[in-house]
Amino acid sequence: MADLTFSVEGNAESQTRITAKARQFSIVIDEPPTLGGHDLGANPVEYLLASYAGCVNVMAYLIASELSIKLDKLTIKVDGNINPNRLFGKSFDERAGFKQINLSLNPVTDATPELLNKWLTEIKNRCPINDNLLNPTPVSLQLS
Amino acid sequence: MADLTFSVEGNAESQTRITAKARQFSIVIDEPPTLGGHDLGANPVEYLLASYAGCVNVMAYLIASELSIKLDKLTIKVDGNINPNRLFGKSFDERAGFKQINLSLNPVTDATPELLNKWLTEIKNRCPINDNLLNPTPVSLQLS
Repeated sequence: MADLTFSVEGNAESQTRITAKARQFSIVIDEPPTLGGHDLGANPVEYLLASYAGCVNVMAYLIASELSIKLDKLTIKVDGNINPNRLFGKSFDERAGFKQINLSLNPVTDATPELLNKWLTEIKNRCPINDNLLNPTPVSLQLS
Repeated sequence: MADLTFSVEGNAESQTRITAKARQFSIVIDEPPTLGGHDLGANPVEYLLASYAGCVNVMAYLIASELSIKLDKLTIKVDGNINPNRLFGKSFDERAGFKQINLSLNPVTDATPELLNKWLTEIKNRCPINDNLLNPTPVSLQLS
């Protein structure tokens, strides 16, 4: 299979708000007042966690199907912590981004623990967002 | 400043769709039909690119303010390419996630090229999502 290219584009609407267009979808991103915005959308780091939840959801069902696991229900929770000092330029001791991200999967299923472990291993190995978080990704951030 | 914790949570609504709740916001994530979904929202990897655009937008204005750069307009484009073979379990030769992500910033401003280079360097250094993409992030993906 050939590479797939994905893209988004947007114009800044305020110092914290941008509507990113992805195909026919408009994704409104803002910050809460405590981070300088007007809270018209989830903030950038919340979208990262949502992206991870969404990706794991797709992989969970794809691999469940391969392993003949029937998922009656699936709940996904993700959290992560950030120290904002670097972002605000107050200190450069800590990294800018999430220091740790935790995703928990709660499947309702009668699959055995052994099969669920295999399922989890495959999700980790094949989920794009899991890869992009766990391993370095070449990024080019430039003026156009 | 103390660490900030962010979180999202959702229940699978289909094999590809989940609505991730982040505070009062509902983020609908799906896949296009070509990837097995019904296209009721942007897909997980598009949300990752949107997250990056949103984060750079916030940092661009924050640092412009610090450097006394006036931004009359700012356009942000992000794209990235993924080889889907690993995701679908067809081949494990390539990584699962984005192989490369390119973000381009188009500011309308009368700032000098030298000042804009300083601005860009600070954005790269202090943007949380840029950090989480460029550098490894500890992730815990577990059953709850």
